[in-house]
Amino acid sequence: MSDPVPPSPAEDEAAARHRAKMEKRKAVQDKEVAEKTIEKGLLVVHTGPGKGKSTAAFGLALRMLGRGGRVGVVQFIKGAWQTGEQDAFQAFGDRVSWHTMGEGFTWETQDLARDKAAAARAFGKARELMADETISLLILDELNIALRYDYLDLAEVVATLAARRPGLHVVVTGRNAKPELLAAADLVTEMGLVKHHFAAGVKAQAGIEF
Amino acid sequence: MSDPVPPSPAEDEAAARHRAKMEKRKAVQDKEVAEKTIEKGLLVVHTGPGKGKSTAAFGLALRMLGRGGRVGVVQFIKGAWQTGEQDAFQAFGDRVSWHTMGEGFTWETQDLARDKAAAARAFGKARELMADETISLLILDELNIALRYDYLDLAEVVATLAARRPGLHVVVTGRNAKPELLAAADLVTEMGLVKHHFAAGVKAQAGIEF
Repeated sequence: MSDPVPPSPAEDEAAARHRAKMEKRKAVQDKEVAEKTIEKGLLVVHTGPGKGKSTAAFGLALRMLGRGGRVGVVQFIKGAWQTGEQDAFQAFGDRVSWHTMGEGFTWETQDLARDKAAAARAFGKARELMADETISLLILDELNIALRYDYLDLAEVVATLAARRPGLHVVVTGRNAKPELLAAADLVTEMGLVKHHFAAGVKAQAGIEF
Repeated sequence: MSDPVPPSPAEDEAAARHRAKMEKRKAVQDKEVAEKTIEKGLLVVHTGPGKGKSTAAFGLALRMLGRGGRVGVVQFIKGAWQTGEQDAFQAFGDRVSWHTMGEGFTWETQDLARDKAAAARAFGKARELMADETISLLILDELNIALRYDYLDLAEVVATLAARRPGLHVVVTGRNAKPELLAAADLVTEMGLVKHHFAAGVKAQAGIEF
C-alpha cells in the first residue's frame, strides 16, 4: 500500500494539510498533558452489559506487573471454575495475590445466607489486601454483583474504598454499578454491548470467555 | 456482615424468594448455554471513547496464554514508548509474538507518507501472523486509528480479516471503528467514557495508563 512513485502536487498538498492538522492536535495534546500534575491511587469502575469488564481489569494487572508492582485479586462471585487468566498469573509467582472467594454465580448457589457469608469473607480479604502496602493495584472482581443483590452494605463498602491509602489503585468490576460507587470513583468505563456472537449460537470458548 | 442469630420467619421467606428467583435464572442460563454449539475463531472489536480497549485485549491475551495458546500482537499506532504490558508479556517468552510497528501517535509524527508506510508494514506483519498456525489469538492494536485516517485500504483489511483461518481469534482495537469492520465482526464492545480522572487534573500514571 506504500507508493513508490514521487508524490503529485495534490498529494503534496494533502500531506501539508495533514501535517498542519496534526501539528495543531499535538499542541492541544501537549498542553493537556502539562496541565495534569496530580498523582493518586485511582478508584476505577468497569461496568455495563458488554464484555471486557473483568478482562480489562486483568489487563491493568498485567500492566502493573510490567511496572514492577504487586497485584491483589478478590473474586466475589465467580470461582466455580478455573479461569485462563488465573493460570497465566502463576507466571508472576507471589506478585499476584489471587483469592477466589465466591461460590459461583448467584443463580448457581441459590442460597442467600451462603452468598452473604461468602461476600462478607471476600470483603474481609479485600480489607486485608488494602492494608498490605506491598500491593499497588487491587481488583475487586464482580463486587458490583454482590452490591446489587445486597450481599454487602453499600455505604460501608463505599466508605472503605474511599478511605484507601493514597497510592493504592482499586478496580471494581461488574454490571449495574451502584450510583454511590460511581460518585466515589475517579474513572468509570461503561462496557456497551454492540454485537455478541452468543446471539449467533456461538458457544463460550477457552481462551476467550474463560 | 454475616448473621450469628437464627433467621427470623421474614428472613426465611426472603431466602426462599431468593432461591426461587435464582432457580428460575439458572434454568434460563442452562438453556441458553445448551443452545450454543458453534466453535469458531472470533473477530472481536473494542471501540468507543472510553478506557479499556487495548487493556481488555491484553487481558484476553493473558486468558489465552493461561489456556496454553500463543498470542500475536501488532501495534499500529502506539510504540513511541515501552508499555507495562509489553514488559509483563516477557514472562511468557516466545509464546507472545509482539510487534510494535507504529511510529507513535499520528499527531507526533506529522508525516502522512511515513504513517502510511508504517501502517502498510504493520498490516504485512499482521498477515504473516494470521498465517502462523501456532497462533490462536492475534491482537491488532489501534488498527481502527490507521483505518480512520485512511492509512490502509478498508475493503482490503476487512476482506483479509474475514478470510482468517477458522480457529483464529482476532481482536481489533481503537476508537471510531468503521461500520464495515463492525459488520464483519462477531463481537463488538463499545467502551463508553462515564467519568475520567484526567478531567480532575490527575496525570497518566505508570501501571495504569502505560
